[in-house]
Amino acid sequence: MDRSGHDSARRSFLKGAGVAGLAVMAGPALAASSDEVTWDQTYDIVIVGSGFSGLAAAIEAKRKGAKSVAIIEKMPVFGGNSAINGGLYAAPDTPLQQEEGVKDSPEIMVADQMKAGRGIADETLLRHVATHAREGLELCLEVGAKFHPFLQQLGGHSVPRTYQTTVNCGAGITQPLYKECKRLGVVLVNRAKLKRFIRAGNGRVEGITVDTRYYYDRDVAEGPERHIRATQGLIMATGGFSQNVRLRMAQDPTLTADVGSTNAAGATGEGLLQMLRLGAIPVHMAHIQSGPWASPDEGGFGYVSNYSIFNFPHSIAIERKSGRRFMNEIADRKTRADAELANRDEQGNPDPALMITSFKHANQHANARKVLKYGVGWKFDSLEKLAKNYQIPLEPLKAQVEEYNGYVETGVDKQFGKSMAKAKGKYLEAPFMVVRLWPKVHYCQGGVMINRDAQVLDSQTGEPIPGLYAAGEVTGGVHGVSRLGSCSIPECIVMGMTASRHITAEA
Amino acid sequence: MDRSGHDSARRSFLKGAGVAGLAVMAGPALAASSDEVTWDQTYDIVIVGSGFSGLAAAIEAKRKGAKSVAIIEKMPVFGGNSAINGGLYAAPDTPLQQEEGVKDSPEIMVADQMKAGRGIADETLLRHVATHAREGLELCLEVGAKFHPFLQQLGGHSVPRTYQTTVNCGAGITQPLYKECKRLGVVLVNRAKLKRFIRAGNGRVEGITVDTRYYYDRDVAEGPERHIRATQGLIMATGGFSQNVRLRMAQDPTLTADVGSTNAAGATGEGLLQMLRLGAIPVHMAHIQSGPWASPDEGGFGYVSNYSIFNFPHSIAIERKSGRRFMNEIADRKTRADAELANRDEQGNPDPALMITSFKHANQHANARKVLKYGVGWKFDSLEKLAKNYQIPLEPLKAQVEEYNGYVETGVDKQFGKSMAKAKGKYLEAPFMVVRLWPKVHYCQGGVMINRDAQVLDSQTGEPIPGLYAAGEVTGGVHGVSRLGSCSIPECIVMGMTASRHITAEA
Repeated sequence: MDRSGHDSARRSFLKGAGVAGLAVMAGPALAASSDEVTWDQTYDIVIVGSGFSGLAAAIEAKRKGAKSVAIIEKMPVFGGNSAINGGLYAAPDTPLQQEEGVKDSPEIMVADQMKAGRGIADETLLRHVATHAREGLELCLEVGAKFHPFLQQLGGHSVPRTYQTTVNCGAGITQPLYKECKRLGVVLVNRAKLKRFIRAGNGRVEGITVDTRYYYDRDVAEGPERHIRATQGLIMATGGFSQNVRLRMAQDPTLTADVGSTNAAGATGEGLLQMLRLGAIPVHMAHIQSGPWASPDEGGFGYVSNYSIFNFPHSIAIERKSGRRFMNEIADRKTRADAELANRDEQGNPDPALMITSFKHANQHANARKVLKYGVGWKFDSLEKLAKNYQIPLEPLKAQVEEYNGYVETGVDKQFGKSMAKAKGKYLEAPFMVVRLWPKVHYCQGGVMINRDAQVLDSQTGEPIPGLYAAGEVTGGVHGVSRLGSCSIPECIVMGMTASRHITAEA
Repeated sequence: MDRSGHDSARRSFLKGAGVAGLAVMAGPALAASSDEVTWDQTYDIVIVGSGFSGLAAAIEAKRKGAKSVAIIEKMPVFGGNSAINGGLYAAPDTPLQQEEGVKDSPEIMVADQMKAGRGIADETLLRHVATHAREGLELCLEVGAKFHPFLQQLGGHSVPRTYQTTVNCGAGITQPLYKECKRLGVVLVNRAKLKRFIRAGNGRVEGITVDTRYYYDRDVAEGPERHIRATQGLIMATGGFSQNVRLRMAQDPTLTADVGSTNAAGATGEGLLQMLRLGAIPVHMAHIQSGPWASPDEGGFGYVSNYSIFNFPHSIAIERKSGRRFMNEIADRKTRADAELANRDEQGNPDPALMITSFKHANQHANARKVLKYGVGWKFDSLEKLAKNYQIPLEPLKAQVEEYNGYVETGVDKQFGKSMAKAKGKYLEAPFMVVRLWPKVHYCQGGVMINRDAQVLDSQTGEPIPGLYAAGEVTGGVHGVSRLGSCSIPECIVMGMTASRHITAEA
């Protein structure tokens, strides 16, 4: 009885839908059916998005025997937002940890992440990523990614476990991955924008319709629509929505267009929204992370972000009005971003905090020269000149520097409990470098819910949507309230690989 | 060109879908088309859900001239979760505030709510509700709801502004509203479960398909499917998802099936999930509120919740281990719930806090006798006996009570800055009443995004989905991170009325 009523409604739908109606009905909102679609192209595996997740998924698919793999990218260039990220990769039990004598394990890394996630992170997914993070790093190394020969200890991590590309940028990973994709014969299609999913009668996602020759800047597609079939699986690796002002404002009205973002322009989340229309479960979309290492003096991720990530362990961040520290400089991102945002004048306008570093230590990071060259960081011969320039009360500042140097000496930060391991012997001494700090929208913890096989789950049944996988920032729940720095790349690479492993094992 | 490719995919869909396929394709996930649907019933306005929002919408629709209005309810009884809520209604500028000389305004109420919302509440919607809250109260009074002749000052409210029904329960409002609906000729259909939306060719939501003779306990529909048309508008008033364990765990893995909920069994959120599949914007779904006034010694909302809401202003909540206060007893709900959840033994197991009240004050609330009768609250002749019973260190407890009585005297709480206005003259004196405190899942701040006309917005266009309205707990973003107590009923009633006003004005 259910079924007959069912069918009759559906049949009416089929009969009644005229051309005018269809223009709306079959818009991006709806999934089309695969029956009798004339496929323009057919691949074993189709991947939407060409950042870390998409590229790693493609390589792993080929390695596991997929005959044909395609990557679909809406932007003119490949690499997505990954190509402009900080190039920081956290993993436990790595060669550099062995060299540096750092004791670490997947469990310790998961514990750090659970703490930052404020109890609502997905421990199963975190453990899966931490356990395979070293494999992901090996993939990067195998394809030719180059990393600095030392580890960093980023905010919220209890030990140094973070590699960084020698170019201090995600492109140091996406470019070698991209070249490997080419070498393996992965089909790479740019300027192709996902329009809708195509599903089989049994509900399985069979492929997608894309607009071709898509020009992002004008939001126009000049080429024909194409139906692309994925016989084994479709992997959505479309990233976050930091650049979708409407969607981020829906979650947090303060994240207006005026608030900066570190992300590439294409990070607008259409792939995520399309999956919600299929019935994917939205998770943690209100948890949008702002980067506490950003500068109000430049656009996007800029030069300061990596500079300050590197320097925070042996620097002090001070409130301009008082000349005093106001946070643990390597606390997790949310703790620091919230603390920085509290730096305001009497009218509530931003009065950005200042990060002070000894020039000799700051200058060990390649960006120090760029920061000075582009006028987004400044060098001072003495504390007096520094204080005068920013109208900081001199005596409290002097006392603060002296007090902090005492913590460097003893290895114990009595003010904020900062781990002083990476500050050993690094006293604050003239000449000084200064950059200003103000958070920017950086990362969306939220997205669609997946299981440990990277399958997208259906909101009404809790079961996987057949044929549909997702990996990377488009997924949600992994990190909880706040993601730790350098934990995105391992997640993207591991979950991209995981999706392809599951698809090829099932095929 | 777009359109032609479009149509061909759509046509294939129509032709190719056989019966077996349809059973999946046309399941609850998809909206059907209205063209050539044989409508079983047609109304001006159709409302799904019969809580505060749905009932108020129906009455307002009739008052504004709608000829035919139907309410569709999946459960056997009308009233939804509203019927078992606390019956607390906050509004500024009311007759009781005038009587009691309380200075208040919509702006002050909005400011209190914005603070609890931790900066991400929707100020426009809050202001709309606060401005019309008194009208909503008048609707309740007109239909015969009875309220206590005094105001309460609930946690997070800067002044007393909360009415409560004489039955201390939402049924004191839903029952009169329901009777008024009957009187006005609203068609009330129970055991009818929303199955899918029916949309016109232009995308407008034209009606719904429901399963009839639906038995919630067995999740079975024994009656035929019915297509119900809403010529002017469809209002979704389907409530929150506190009882959907899978969905709440997706947002917060700690909210397992073992965690209690104060909600009615039907609060499972299918209406919300259906709207997401239409393209509604999910907002703040991770912000799930636990009630800090609940007791671990009884199921659901129970007797203790209203008892403690009434008594918090002149009671102390103490940590059992130390005998000391650990929170402002009238801070906002999230602050208190988080503080209560920190009361644990060495193994991390719950060691619930105790609320201590003078018996003579506690006994002014009708539930005091029930709390004693059902063994979920206890009376003690002396502090000594009380301390002995719960193994609380006696001296610290005595000192705490004495200290607190000093705050009652001076009107200033030096421990936690609690407003002592409602505690004036109410010293803690034997005999004492005690209840235990442990939070329960109570309210979902998240849901679909609406505008000030209660229209549901589309995630890709940001524009209203034509014909579709939503009101009450199924909507999200209004309250931000944490909703203040007694602000749900005014929101439900005002937004239900708002939806009907907009529909009838447009019709």
